[in-house]
Amino acid sequence: MGIRKTPVTYHKLLLILTVWMPVIFFFSTANAQKNQMVRLAKITVDSAQLENYKALLKEEIETSVRVEPGVLSLYALSEKDRPTHITILEIYADSAAYRSHLQTPHFIKYKTETKEMVKSLELVPVDPLVPGMKIKD
Amino acid sequence: MGIRKTPVTYHKLLLILTVWMPVIFFFSTANAQKNQMVRLAKITVDSAQLENYKALLKEEIETSVRVEPGVLSLYALSEKDRPTHITILEIYADSAAYRSHLQTPHFIKYKTETKEMVKSLELVPVDPLVPGMKIKD
Repeated sequence: MGIRKTPVTYHKLLLILTVWMPVIFFFSTANAQKNQMVRLAKITVDSAQLENYKALLKEEIETSVRVEPGVLSLYALSEKDRPTHITILEIYADSAAYRSHLQTPHFIKYKTETKEMVKSLELVPVDPLVPGMKIKD
Repeated sequence: MGIRKTPVTYHKLLLILTVWMPVIFFFSTANAQKNQMVRLAKITVDSAQLENYKALLKEEIETSVRVEPGVLSLYALSEKDRPTHITILEIYADSAAYRSHLQTPHFIKYKTETKEMVKSLELVPVDPLVPGMKIKD
């Protein structure tokens, strides 16, 4: 009996891990997605400043996505028929990641330097329909 | 001379590959992104049918992204303050992928079954500001 004790415990442990690891992984992923903060920013830009504005926004987005792990995406687009109308799909890991983003030097630079270029800004909190949606290669 | 010919040619070939492969890769990626078709679909849904509509849209999106390589993303969201207002960021590899998507049984099923639920639909062609933007894990 004493001899068999170790292998049985080992097998039990393996069994527990095999069964529960995917369950734990699934719930931790689902939970991480539940905490996400997702928003649409709807911006109209002074047409005389559009190219300057787009350059500053592009720089801010590329830096944010590269250096901030909690900034999951900033997908910015301009309407083909009304290029001064910009929409940004903003995805943050959680609200703490968003608050931290607001304090970064690159965000503050963007906000300061584009202040006179932005004619209107609407921030629309949203719920994603398919959690975990990605953009494929 | 005859003996050295093969290794020199081999080295030259290696050099050419080493130098040009990243260049070719860069331009093929940039070109692929240039061909992308990106659009915002803005939909308002009959409030009495909202849950049915969302279930049908979710099914259509999950199938499209899974089985169609050219459907790169369908990021759908509903506004928290006006849940009947749905926006979908649609990213297709190119216009052929989009045309093919319109012929799929899952798209036709969605379109047919949601016909009476959709109060308005606006399709807005857009230009992405940062080509190749992804959604991080």
